[in-house]
Amino acid sequence: MATNITWHPNLTYQERSELINQKGATIWLTGLSASGKSTIACALEQLLLKEKVTAYRLDGDNIRFGLNKDLGFSEQDRVENIRRIAEVSKLFADSCSIAVTSFISPYREDRDKARELHVNSNLKFIEVFVDVPLEVAEKRDPKGLYKKAREGVIKDFTGISAPYEAPIKPEIHIRTDLLSVEESALQIYNYLKEHNVL
Amino acid sequence: MATNITWHPNLTYQERSELINQKGATIWLTGLSASGKSTIACALEQLLLKEKVTAYRLDGDNIRFGLNKDLGFSEQDRVENIRRIAEVSKLFADSCSIAVTSFISPYREDRDKARELHVNSNLKFIEVFVDVPLEVAEKRDPKGLYKKAREGVIKDFTGISAPYEAPIKPEIHIRTDLLSVEESALQIYNYLKEHNVL
Repeated sequence: MATNITWHPNLTYQERSELINQKGATIWLTGLSASGKSTIACALEQLLLKEKVTAYRLDGDNIRFGLNKDLGFSEQDRVENIRRIAEVSKLFADSCSIAVTSFISPYREDRDKARELHVNSNLKFIEVFVDVPLEVAEKRDPKGLYKKAREGVIKDFTGISAPYEAPIKPEIHIRTDLLSVEESALQIYNYLKEHNVL
Repeated sequence: MATNITWHPNLTYQERSELINQKGATIWLTGLSASGKSTIACALEQLLLKEKVTAYRLDGDNIRFGLNKDLGFSEQDRVENIRRIAEVSKLFADSCSIAVTSFISPYREDRDKARELHVNSNLKFIEVFVDVPLEVAEKRDPKGLYKKAREGVIKDFTGISAPYEAPIKPEIHIRTDLLSVEESALQIYNYLKEHNVL
């Protein structure tokens, strides 16, 4: 669509990274509603900031009030929702910050596109499967959404009336029914250390 | 449009700011094509990063390849283009980074909306009028766009066949025909120092 465009030469990722001595990455949390994504994201954000590492959480619910407030829940809007979030997280990663995204993002294709976007720009994309048995998530049900989904009040609810396509080879696999929030956040933090992101 | 939304409690801006000891802001550069916005933005970004201040440049041309690649140049798309950029710069500012946006953004209404978005969330929005006489910009014409606009090859070109609404009360007013790139970037940097952003 866009025409009349010239690519501006600018500071490269490498130059930015060296200047502030920090690397960027996108930590993409995916999992069922009530799997613990946002809680872990918040704990991880805090853990990183305490280490003076710039990090920012992009949250499905939060971002819908702003950037994506024009989008609804149709198939087309769902894809566009994830596309924009992937683009924004990429900007954060490119700025040498750690983007922590927290969305159900149930479809492999959408997540793979987000990954591709990063990989094509040599930016780190770390997929984290926040895994919990459906029964556990449904029992937690902090917002009463599973109940509404079972009653048919909410249509196309992931895990109940819409599929969740679990990651096949996520970089990190967390069982939140077996680990505490702190342990979960630390599992990601240690991965970042071991893989030279921090 | 969006429904089924709960606002997640999360780290506040204040908490993030204290943890990493940095404040966020959006520096919104506006001015004619070839006024020097991108050059100044790049110099400012570098200046800030050298001081270990996290900063990131959002550029009209660059962002159109990613987040806004679905948008064209219609009236509706132009408004949506600036809206999304305002939302993204707000996310950066909220993350305690310095967003430096570099767009012609010729309409007061669009810029005022971007400002409002920040002010409503208690985030700093600093409008910078990158000012140069049209004759000077047209003489620079590094991409040959003014020439094409005069020839009618490009329609609705700001300053030639479409209006540029100069800021009435910008926080910073830079005359790039009178100042060097370094002096211009420093003018913004000093403003940030004086206003307690740095």
